[in-house]
Amino acid sequence: MNRSTYCLEEIARLVKGEYFGDKKVQVSNLASLQQAESQHICFVNGDKYLEQAEQSRAGVYIVTEALKQQLKNKKNFVVVDNPYLAFAILTHLFEAKITHRGIESTAKIHASAQIADDVYIGHYVVIGENCVIGNNTIIQSHAFIDDDVQIGKDCFIDAHVTITGAAQLKDRVRIHANTAIGTEGFGFAPYQSRWHRIAQLGSVKIGNDVRIGSNCSIDRGALDDTILEDGVIIDNLVQIAHNVHIGQNTAIAAKCGIAGSSRIGKNCILGGATGVTGHLTIADNVTLTAMSMVTKSISEAGTYSSGIGLFENSQWKRTVVRLRQLADVPLTQLTKKLDHIQAQIESLESTLKFRK
Amino acid sequence: MNRSTYCLEEIARLVKGEYFGDKKVQVSNLASLQQAESQHICFVNGDKYLEQAEQSRAGVYIVTEALKQQLKNKKNFVVVDNPYLAFAILTHLFEAKITHRGIESTAKIHASAQIADDVYIGHYVVIGENCVIGNNTIIQSHAFIDDDVQIGKDCFIDAHVTITGAAQLKDRVRIHANTAIGTEGFGFAPYQSRWHRIAQLGSVKIGNDVRIGSNCSIDRGALDDTILEDGVIIDNLVQIAHNVHIGQNTAIAAKCGIAGSSRIGKNCILGGATGVTGHLTIADNVTLTAMSMVTKSISEAGTYSSGIGLFENSQWKRTVVRLRQLADVPLTQLTKKLDHIQAQIESLESTLKFRK
Amino acid sequence: MNRSTYCLEEIARLVKGEYFGDKKVQVSNLASLQQAESQHICFVNGDKYLEQAEQSRAGVYIVTEALKQQLKNKKNFVVVDNPYLAFAILTHLFEAKITHRGIESTAKIHASAQIADDVYIGHYVVIGENCVIGNNTIIQSHAFIDDDVQIGKDCFIDAHVTITGAAQLKDRVRIHANTAIGTEGFGFAPYQSRWHRIAQLGSVKIGNDVRIGSNCSIDRGALDDTILEDGVIIDNLVQIAHNVHIGQNTAIAAKCGIAGSSRIGKNCILGGATGVTGHLTIADNVTLTAMSMVTKSISEAGTYSSGIGLFENSQWKRTVVRLRQLADVPLTQLTKKLDHIQAQIESLESTLKFRK
Repeated sequence: MNRSTYCLEEIARLVKGEYFGDKKVQVSNLASLQQAESQHICFVNGDKYLEQAEQSRAGVYIVTEALKQQLKNKKNFVVVDNPYLAFAILTHLFEAKITHRGIESTAKIHASAQIADDVYIGHYVVIGENCVIGNNTIIQSHAFIDDDVQIGKDCFIDAHVTITGAAQLKDRVRIHANTAIGTEGFGFAPYQSRWHRIAQLGSVKIGNDVRIGSNCSIDRGALDDTILEDGVIIDNLVQIAHNVHIGQNTAIAAKCGIAGSSRIGKNCILGGATGVTGHLTIADNVTLTAMSMVTKSISEAGTYSSGIGLFENSQWKRTVVRLRQLADVPLTQLTKKLDHIQAQIESLESTLKFRK
Repeated sequence: MNRSTYCLEEIARLVKGEYFGDKKVQVSNLASLQQAESQHICFVNGDKYLEQAEQSRAGVYIVTEALKQQLKNKKNFVVVDNPYLAFAILTHLFEAKITHRGIESTAKIHASAQIADDVYIGHYVVIGENCVIGNNTIIQSHAFIDDDVQIGKDCFIDAHVTITGAAQLKDRVRIHANTAIGTEGFGFAPYQSRWHRIAQLGSVKIGNDVRIGSNCSIDRGALDDTILEDGVIIDNLVQIAHNVHIGQNTAIAAKCGIAGSSRIGKNCILGGATGVTGHLTIADNVTLTAMSMVTKSISEAGTYSSGIGLFENSQWKRTVVRLRQLADVPLTQLTKKLDHIQAQIESLESTLKFRK
Repeated sequence: MNRSTYCLEEIARLVKGEYFGDKKVQVSNLASLQQAESQHICFVNGDKYLEQAEQSRAGVYIVTEALKQQLKNKKNFVVVDNPYLAFAILTHLFEAKITHRGIESTAKIHASAQIADDVYIGHYVVIGENCVIGNNTIIQSHAFIDDDVQIGKDCFIDAHVTITGAAQLKDRVRIHANTAIGTEGFGFAPYQSRWHRIAQLGSVKIGNDVRIGSNCSIDRGALDDTILEDGVIIDNLVQIAHNVHIGQNTAIAAKCGIAGSSRIGKNCILGGATGVTGHLTIADNVTLTAMSMVTKSISEAGTYSSGIGLFENSQWKRTVVRLRQLADVPLTQLTKKLDHIQAQIESLESTLKFRK
């Protein structure tokens, strides 16, 4: 933590909001509505949290003007247009930052590597030939930065990260623990019933402000590079295969996998465990809901799905029985046939009536 | 291995069973029925393994009384109520345990860390400020224990594990290789087409006897903590997002993912690759079969599913064609319509008969 | 890179092809058709790349005789039967290989380990008791090779790999970064509402020419061994549970999971994120398309599927509504009923006609 406490007035100024109540009241941390005590500040993220807010013991509430009107029994507020954004800004105030700088004596850094002055390089970090590490970048213990890797300024590389394949990372990139970047793509030529390895000659290029979670695999390209444009955010356990290209500000939730050479547009959102097969193109502004499988290119912005939600097990079993029959049921004809039969019956009925 | 051999009498005593046959016969290891030789002890896990047992060359069989009756040609038995449990107990007898204690000279441990006397801390382990490591805990080579992490007694932390975010682990916790605990949750506030990082201020609390496999990601909470209660067991490559709460003795198979703030009950079983979306509550004693997707809370114990099993590919293609037509087929009306038509026809038929 | 440039004549000889054009023209690397310049060699992988080839600025093209006929404006060719294979061969020419040999002074190697003379063992590698490392094997920084592990010759073990459980790897095995091999299988006996750990006594045996990607988990067996036969190739983030047996030359794409004791045949292909439940047997030459779930054994070669491709979201929602009705719709009876009704109507019609 940078400092112990902040007063209401300061908080309001930091989030460009307006304060109401005792401007001198001190807060020492953010908290959830349920866990907060009087020294905490909370945010109220819409009407559905009003009841929790009423019952909260927090000292200060970040709200919209409209929410404030409904919290009659509370005293201290910061009023903003977007409480969630204000909360995001304030989290940085209370974060325990890594403030030490310098290079631990146990780090092994090749003489040819260029390391900026004010980095922190942790214990047992290995940095290879011709690497470049920018200003104010933090590299945690045990990270392995292989030859020819370039890392920009203000980056955070967590413990046990492997960066290889001559990857290039721009500024403010954050890579979380145990992620592997620039490792060899899965390229093999089948010949005479065996797999012949294709050595991977491309690299990985990672733009500014990219965030990659823990235990991810981002492969280097086969010939051209794998590319993550500026502002891409990726959760944990995600697979990005060789030559994938991901457009600006696209968000990829945990456990997604994107196969080789696929191209994802800008501002897309991939729900958890979504799979994209190889050599596809997905347009900008596409949202894929969780556990979708994409097997064809998508040319229009929109929301797409294929993951099936839960059934009670015995109903599911009966459903699967029907699914297995489905191929042989001419669904679209059924309705037509029924209509046709209905017409025949009506004709018969009118014939009969006519003869009465 | 702790010792080279054990006699039948000792084995029976260890599993609180009764022995039959030569009480002095020596066994030197457990084995599968197929691979066993005369120096091995096997367990027979139900009637369906009787034939394999008949053909086995094992020296001793762990069986129920009923199974023993059916194995006329075998001589040495340990009879118990639950052979699988007896087997589980005996595996610990033959396990190659890490018996050395002490701290390798290459481990980097901050002066403020409290390390119990009889730990083993491997090569190149890094332990940060204010950490606490309990009695008899083993920390394998290259583990990274970041500042303020607390680990209880009798724990096992395997190689390349990262524990950060001031995580607290109780006793007898086992964390397998390359798992990341306490890393930053995937929290971003969207604003003006960009993602604004929410620094994660919560932690991870892991109860007694929790087991986490290799290559898992367990994120720290955003404000409150991510919590794994006592006895939770987790397989490999599992994602537990920020603020997830998992109840006692719940088992989570490989490749599952649980999104942020979801709450899983006690004694649940999640089949492999199951996904749970965020902010859900799942009751106690819920079983989810493999590859299920949970998008709504579950309030009743029971078994639930949504993963579809395999089809032969050409049938699958035809099934998917039908699936794509399904939205436009009024399924529930079809049956009703048919019944209605049937009634009309019968009415027509009786009219005709009447007129004969 | 081993050398800076190769002339057309040399290239042709290396891939056992025929050259056309200027045999002295020099190439310094492979490139994609789009990115190539005059110093680059490209391959044309079928008719669909002809247009890209026409527009490419590459100096040399690897083609079939038939493709060459259609590239009238190009001058320098290597003609082969299989351009993709020729490309695979040439990638090795231009790969940046790790050429240094020796053992870094920071590697901790137990006195009892047998290390061949011409290995490379990187910084901070830890190698335990009784390990064996074969000729020309490269072990990157931070790898952890636990006691009793055997690794053959010409292997590549990347950074942060954990190999434990007395695993045995044969020759030319490649294991990519942050993968865990030989870790404990997920074996627990349930008893009195708790999980009782089954210590895992089996090992992992990995054949010649096996390739395992980054962030994979390959568990040791419970009693018998987990086995990967010669030539198996595995992509990133794959889970192989205890006692799985994978036949020769089977390819497993990223994010697959194979549960305990399942047996996959030879020459199979598992598409991305496919799941196989436990104790199944899959025949040789089976292809599973992406995101399939296998819950029953497969006894015949062929292609099988169960992953559903994408729908536009609102159509998907309507489809799921129908899916939830499906269990109660007697699909196969519908068609029969319709045919029956049709017959009844025809009978009525003919009765009516007859009476006219």
